[in-house]
Amino acid sequence: MNWLNIPAKAFNKVSEQAALARQGQLTKPPGSLGQLEKIATRLAGLQGELKPSVDKVMIRVFAGDHGVVDEGVSAFPQVVTGEMVKNFAAQGAAITVVAESLQADFGVINLGTVNELPELPKVQNQRIAAGTQNFCKQTAMTEDQLSAALTAGQGVAVEAIANNVQLFIGGEMGIGNTTSASAIACALLNQSAAALVGRGTGVDDDGIQRKQSAVTRALELHELNTNNVNTLKALQCLGGFEIAGLVGAYIACAQAGISILVDGFISSVAALVAVSINPTIRPWLFFGHQSAESGHALVLNKLDAQALLSLDMRLGEASGAALAVPLMQMACRLHSQMATFESAGVSEA
Amino acid sequence: MNWLNIPAKAFNKVSEQAALARQGQLTKPPGSLGQLEKIATRLAGLQGELKPSVDKVMIRVFAGDHGVVDEGVSAFPQVVTGEMVKNFAAQGAAITVVAESLQADFGVINLGTVNELPELPKVQNQRIAAGTQNFCKQTAMTEDQLSAALTAGQGVAVEAIANNVQLFIGGEMGIGNTTSASAIACALLNQSAAALVGRGTGVDDDGIQRKQSAVTRALELHELNTNNVNTLKALQCLGGFEIAGLVGAYIACAQAGISILVDGFISSVAALVAVSINPTIRPWLFFGHQSAESGHALVLNKLDAQALLSLDMRLGEASGAALAVPLMQMACRLHSQMATFESAGVSEA
Repeated sequence: MNWLNIPAKAFNKVSEQAALARQGQLTKPPGSLGQLEKIATRLAGLQGELKPSVDKVMIRVFAGDHGVVDEGVSAFPQVVTGEMVKNFAAQGAAITVVAESLQADFGVINLGTVNELPELPKVQNQRIAAGTQNFCKQTAMTEDQLSAALTAGQGVAVEAIANNVQLFIGGEMGIGNTTSASAIACALLNQSAAALVGRGTGVDDDGIQRKQSAVTRALELHELNTNNVNTLKALQCLGGFEIAGLVGAYIACAQAGISILVDGFISSVAALVAVSINPTIRPWLFFGHQSAESGHALVLNKLDAQALLSLDMRLGEASGAALAVPLMQMACRLHSQMATFESAGVSEA
Repeated sequence: MNWLNIPAKAFNKVSEQAALARQGQLTKPPGSLGQLEKIATRLAGLQGELKPSVDKVMIRVFAGDHGVVDEGVSAFPQVVTGEMVKNFAAQGAAITVVAESLQADFGVINLGTVNELPELPKVQNQRIAAGTQNFCKQTAMTEDQLSAALTAGQGVAVEAIANNVQLFIGGEMGIGNTTSASAIACALLNQSAAALVGRGTGVDDDGIQRKQSAVTRALELHELNTNNVNTLKALQCLGGFEIAGLVGAYIACAQAGISILVDGFISSVAALVAVSINPTIRPWLFFGHQSAESGHALVLNKLDAQALLSLDMRLGEASGAALAVPLMQMACRLHSQMATFESAGVSEA
């Protein structure tokens, strides 16, 4: 897994400066496009272009099941993970509706549903196992399984490079995965379960108690309730295949110079893991949506990240990030297509 | 001006209930699409359709100059209003870039630039006067001028009806108009200038002082610093032609059953005026962007409104609302195109 530490592509400060200068010449009061100006000038630095663009978008949803579902942590039965993969293939899910509207390249990587699935359009079968093990009782995955999941993520980046993708969005589907993500976040932030366990897809108060209990027991079992835990160990002990897939994809995309738009809580935990392993990737991460899931604000804060949207969503699947794509595209179009004060003959302040 | 009081088209609760039931059947945890679910079900009630849509969007920017600019309240010279109208016509401004990207029907209504403008593409010349009078010294407009500006707004709704528009966005361009809008908001909310005067397009601290002083003096002069001021009087004494145009357009669109997406601070003050005149229009108003202009939060609060975006923008021109259009369109597409648990064979919670 040495590839994880290869530095991300360097940021081009000359292009960023040129883009900042251009923003100052466009026919608007300085700074009046707010965050959209920052997106455009940052993308200029990332892409090494005065006029960047993110028209070519790739969305990949990683799917995997979680042994910890045995602890009664989810409102939905485990079979739903595979059923939703079929729903993605049939274009009936939220992310597929948004992806089609965006004309984005959409696909699913099945890293480990409990049940084998038939061949499905848009779905790559890369099942590592029939779900992870219950991390309240043992390590969620072996080291080989962790390596396989990270490598599957790297494979997505290889595909993105081949397709000249300008913006990568990762998503996740896995019943039980808010519990897994909460446990990883607790380990990396050295927080208690109470601070990071939320309702996920909608468990009741008893369900929240079961989630908190499962996380607390797992942190003890794996000795991850201390300062300075080993990030890869936390991912192996507590993770899901789909979370590790996201980690690999984020690191490999940043190494290849492809900007990344991170989705909600679970994806942000994957981003936290990725940045913890390889801090050089941080400039490549944009954040689409601040989730209604309670722990998300803490994770974003640790990453010094501000999400573009906050619409009380808590769905995952890459849906929150996908909804923010038009904002990033508009930021680029405004930056490249607006007139300057001089070209339009408009007086300056 | 009796037409202002005609009730808005009625809200269809049967359609809203049917849409709420449909939301509960879609393949996602209940409520997990957050505000997008509320947009879709509210539009269902407004349009009287189980599956509403807002694909047909019309954007009209009202332009007008302000006599109060004589008080040194703006960072930009007054000539910029007309120059920006030319920039709209040449598609060099922020709103024209976004409108083109949205494939929206875009146009400008010139209600009173200081200088006469040549014939320009996309610009309707309906100049009422060479700007308003300085409201620190006299009433900004005559009653006839107010009526003409409101009627111009009504005319935009007539055009929207003829074009089967599903979503109307109004914008404004007028150097000095944050001062006018702040003064109107002070009068309607019975607040001091300090609470509602902000930096607008970017005045310095001295400029803010001059804006606050101008607003305070105007409220005294016109006896609008009391409870229960007459809304139309406040609009006539302090308004701009473009603000009155927005008021007329909002009321007439709601009467015609056309949903409205309100832009930033100045447009929200126009919405506050419109709702104060005719409270039945409130259900037709959506709010696109919470401005960086400091008074906006107070105005939204009074309207019990939550904006979809908050991107630190402060540009006007309808730009903040236009950027929120993809969210409303995605809300409708998700609502109408997602599979149900039954159709997709996905197990429920």
